[in-house]
Amino acid sequence: MIGILIFPDFQLLDAAGPISVFEVAARCTGKTLALRVLAAGAGLVRSSSGVEMMARDFKSANAITTLVIAGGAGVADAARCEVTRAFVQRLARRGVRVASVCSGAYVLAEAGLLDGRRATTHWGRTRDFVARYPKVKFEPDQIFTRDGNVWTSAGITAGIDLALAMVTEDHGEEIAQQAARQLVLYHRRSGGQSQFSSLLELKHRPAASARCCPGRAKISTRR
Amino acid sequence: MIGILIFPDFQLLDAAGPISVFEVAARCTGKTLALRVLAAGAGLVRSSSGVEMMARDFKSANAITTLVIAGGAGVADAARCEVTRAFVQRLARRGVRVASVCSGAYVLAEAGLLDGRRATTHWGRTRDFVARYPKVKFEPDQIFTRDGNVWTSAGITAGIDLALAMVTEDHGEEIAQQAARQLVLYHRRSGGQSQFSSLLELKHRPAASARCCPGRAKISTRR
Repeated sequence: MIGILIFPDFQLLDAAGPISVFEVAARCTGKTLALRVLAAGAGLVRSSSGVEMMARDFKSANAITTLVIAGGAGVADAARCEVTRAFVQRLARRGVRVASVCSGAYVLAEAGLLDGRRATTHWGRTRDFVARYPKVKFEPDQIFTRDGNVWTSAGITAGIDLALAMVTEDHGEEIAQQAARQLVLYHRRSGGQSQFSSLLELKHRPAASARCCPGRAKISTRR
Repeated sequence: MIGILIFPDFQLLDAAGPISVFEVAARCTGKTLALRVLAAGAGLVRSSSGVEMMARDFKSANAITTLVIAGGAGVADAARCEVTRAFVQRLARRGVRVASVCSGAYVLAEAGLLDGRRATTHWGRTRDFVARYPKVKFEPDQIFTRDGNVWTSAGITAGIDLALAMVTEDHGEEIAQQAARQLVLYHRRSGGQSQFSSLLELKHRPAASARCCPGRAKISTRR
């Protein structure tokens, strides 16, 4: 069972991207998608776009083996929420694969799950994140990172890349490729997030080759 | 006001992609997002992933100037629904910019809005679509098309590209670029949808250069 964690003022695409990846991948494998959207308060949860999504509470999360935490404008409150933090910590202790999209990394960081681990977040959050969580091995120019059971992604659409990598882990390259084709997407995009960020370009000055040349996506993994 | 049309068994990302593009673009312009999710029946609408999104009925659509129709497994019923067809036709007659994502093109086609117009849809639907709607000037290898006020896109994530092009039209290149960066996306991706489709590769055999080399996205526009 996959859990998608949202909160008031979450970014809709942070949640919907991975949901659709897992949905399409399940169809490619011929299996039924087992996925639940979860929030600290069950019911309709309003995204920062104003569009509302239905969520269940954390009690229905017993069967979850992968948790993906959305980011968004409301993430600071979500990261401070003790119920949410305790829930994420409990799942991580149980060995669940936990992941964040975009600024969802703040929830993982506040839960202490990124201390000593490699992680990334949206390029626009880099400075704040690094100052706030000095124990995190922050990697600014990744589309996503993986450090053991804890995954993090860059901003918004990078959650799609992260979910496709999880599909590769769970079902292999062929299914992930099929899912990417259905979604009309590259299975792995080339370069890091700096190519999408005028800020990171200025601050980190990646080599021109890293920004322009095709190749494997910049992904940081340690199993 | 932007309207996003959904229906039972819609594809969540078909709707959420454009919604987030318009949301982020509005933030870049400093304006409040004016957007509504609409369905023939107001209330919770279940996507094919099982995740539910809240929608209003068509009565609340008076101020709409852009309508984006999602695709998905339930599109055949939506395209057959007289209330939905009449609604889309009414908006088009009023000069509203109407668009489809993925198989949402079936709704436009059934409403007669694609007759004599260039259009595209998900690569997996090509054969059926062409057989069913011979009056459409079908373009199989586009990420999106525009023919006057009627826009269509390829599958699922191509709705994001389509929405970014609308942002370019409404707010200019600079805002669209900023929105793409926030979303961690290319403003325009290179090549057509055949690069993502083993089916189209086999059937249409695009030149190798069209599949591998960077450049402008394949977009068909006629104003």
